[in-house]
Amino acid sequence: MMTKHQQCWMIKHYASGDLKGTELELVERPIPALTKGEVLIKTIILSLDPSNRIWLSETADYLPQLAIGDVMRGLVIGQVTESRHPHFQTGDYLHTLQGWQEYAVVDGDDLTPEQGTIRFTPHPDIPLDAYASALGLTGWTAFVGLKKIAQLGANDNLLVSGAAGATGLLACQLGKAMHANVVGLAGGAQKCHLLETQFQLDGSIDYKATDNLSEAMAQQFPNGINVFFDNVGGPMLDAALENMAIGGTIVVSGSISQYQKLGDKTQLYGVQNTPMLVTKRLKMQGYLILDHLDEIDHILPELERWLLEEKIQYRNTEVIGLENAQLALPQLFSGRNTGKLVVRVS
Amino acid sequence: MMTKHQQCWMIKHYASGDLKGTELELVERPIPALTKGEVLIKTIILSLDPSNRIWLSETADYLPQLAIGDVMRGLVIGQVTESRHPHFQTGDYLHTLQGWQEYAVVDGDDLTPEQGTIRFTPHPDIPLDAYASALGLTGWTAFVGLKKIAQLGANDNLLVSGAAGATGLLACQLGKAMHANVVGLAGGAQKCHLLETQFQLDGSIDYKATDNLSEAMAQQFPNGINVFFDNVGGPMLDAALENMAIGGTIVVSGSISQYQKLGDKTQLYGVQNTPMLVTKRLKMQGYLILDHLDEIDHILPELERWLLEEKIQYRNTEVIGLENAQLALPQLFSGRNTGKLVVRVS
Repeated sequence: MMTKHQQCWMIKHYASGDLKGTELELVERPIPALTKGEVLIKTIILSLDPSNRIWLSETADYLPQLAIGDVMRGLVIGQVTESRHPHFQTGDYLHTLQGWQEYAVVDGDDLTPEQGTIRFTPHPDIPLDAYASALGLTGWTAFVGLKKIAQLGANDNLLVSGAAGATGLLACQLGKAMHANVVGLAGGAQKCHLLETQFQLDGSIDYKATDNLSEAMAQQFPNGINVFFDNVGGPMLDAALENMAIGGTIVVSGSISQYQKLGDKTQLYGVQNTPMLVTKRLKMQGYLILDHLDEIDHILPELERWLLEEKIQYRNTEVIGLENAQLALPQLFSGRNTGKLVVRVS
Repeated sequence: MMTKHQQCWMIKHYASGDLKGTELELVERPIPALTKGEVLIKTIILSLDPSNRIWLSETADYLPQLAIGDVMRGLVIGQVTESRHPHFQTGDYLHTLQGWQEYAVVDGDDLTPEQGTIRFTPHPDIPLDAYASALGLTGWTAFVGLKKIAQLGANDNLLVSGAAGATGLLACQLGKAMHANVVGLAGGAQKCHLLETQFQLDGSIDYKATDNLSEAMAQQFPNGINVFFDNVGGPMLDAALENMAIGGTIVVSGSISQYQKLGDKTQLYGVQNTPMLVTKRLKMQGYLILDHLDEIDHILPELERWLLEEKIQYRNTEVIGLENAQLALPQLFSGRNTGKLVVRVS
């Protein structure tokens, strides 16, 4: 029997500072034959996320450290093409934490929410790539942050940073769907225009066009911010702390402004307004959607309904071909792309 | 009828930077006669707290701004000596937000938990000044932070900053009473010795004797910190963020290291490790005990029981005489005193 081969991106060296686009190398590797209990998953869509930068760091963070020579880790929408595990069948769709590769051979027992996998049935009226954005990790992240952590209420004042980014754009739309007063923070007039027109936000702040972020926030929220959904961290977090309303919540979904600096502590931004946590009685909570995958069965139908009702839209920037994945990754940190960055693998 | 007079500390100018001890002036003022609905409260003990520094700042914070010429605000244990309000009688004990003065004449309708007052009956076996520390604001603050906000569990790893300070010392003892593994952060070998011997903590860190706070914490908590009870903020908060266990809680009770710098933003310490809120899924919550006074009726009996069972001790540094109050206040920020600083007024 001839062994099949596949393309994989393996880690050549860790990243330090900005991504150079030299961290990974495309190699051809054999696809092992399935043994009992294993499942073959074909990668259809690979998701590119800010967390990729963390996984390329020299020190481990919230997931086990990847070694040089390992296949790069990635979130994948895949389909089971062969199964020797009783719970999985050919054709099953999975949202799963695997790698930058065409196929994955995995023990079916490991395909659990606790280990980063959920099985789902795509809605017949919804394209599959929606499950990589609005109905995928970014949508779930926005949903859990706003509904579960912040318990966003109607008429609450919601500020979203990275508002034109993948998760931010969903947080803005979900905020509107939950009847909040939503203002987005984004870089550039074009993005802000898009947020206000196409996505119908109540306001926007172009952080590139202001040298006083705190004042710009105060103008948008004279009564303070009840919920700050923060993807960015750094100076935006600092300015928001000054503008929070008493008893407000800061949902810390990410700190993308700091990820490329994590290796060099002297470069990290220092948040000066933490004493306001006390005087304003604020809650600030970080979370990872990977801890909430067992709730997705309840979240997904609600998101599907909102998508079908056009309360939320999704907007993917799709890169075609696994071989273009590394080149596309730095776009996440350039502030250039709008919406979710995905790679169509097959 | 001769008008009675009393001593009051009035605000001469706002503070900037370190307290100079010139901010207040002792003046003699008449005690107004009671009109219908009013109550005359005699100050027995005046509590000196870090929040005094905030109240002396040029800009308002969580309470209305005090004006030049106003009597300085303070927490008081007082007794009703005359009442023209149906709900209060001569002899009632009050824990109340009043002023640095011998007497206060107030509308009885304003003596509510929402406005900073609770009425209590001192336990016959407990000295009154305990109600200014272990059984007062500091004890309540520690209790609410550990039990309600952090939901501290048995065997949890608890780090307390400002551990030899008023609130910190209570947090340490309550942590032990709740069967946690408690380490205190304090300045100086003497304080650390006291924490480990007299207060039976599981460990201590002398922050003055280490140039790597983060490493010192890692040594005490190889498995990470589940709950950090923080009174201090600044570099301690930063180091603790590096050492938190996944899912941990930072209870932000105060930021005493920053209060003297609030007026000059360039002096404020920048916390660099906020991205760890996400990767470690941390909750960080600030609170003010003034928001929780309606719960004190339930908290006080538990604290009294623990005090009588000697599970908690209290240690006041008592200054005699209202006229010495201003001189004593800067001690709070010098790191010199242990336990609660109070002024015996009558």
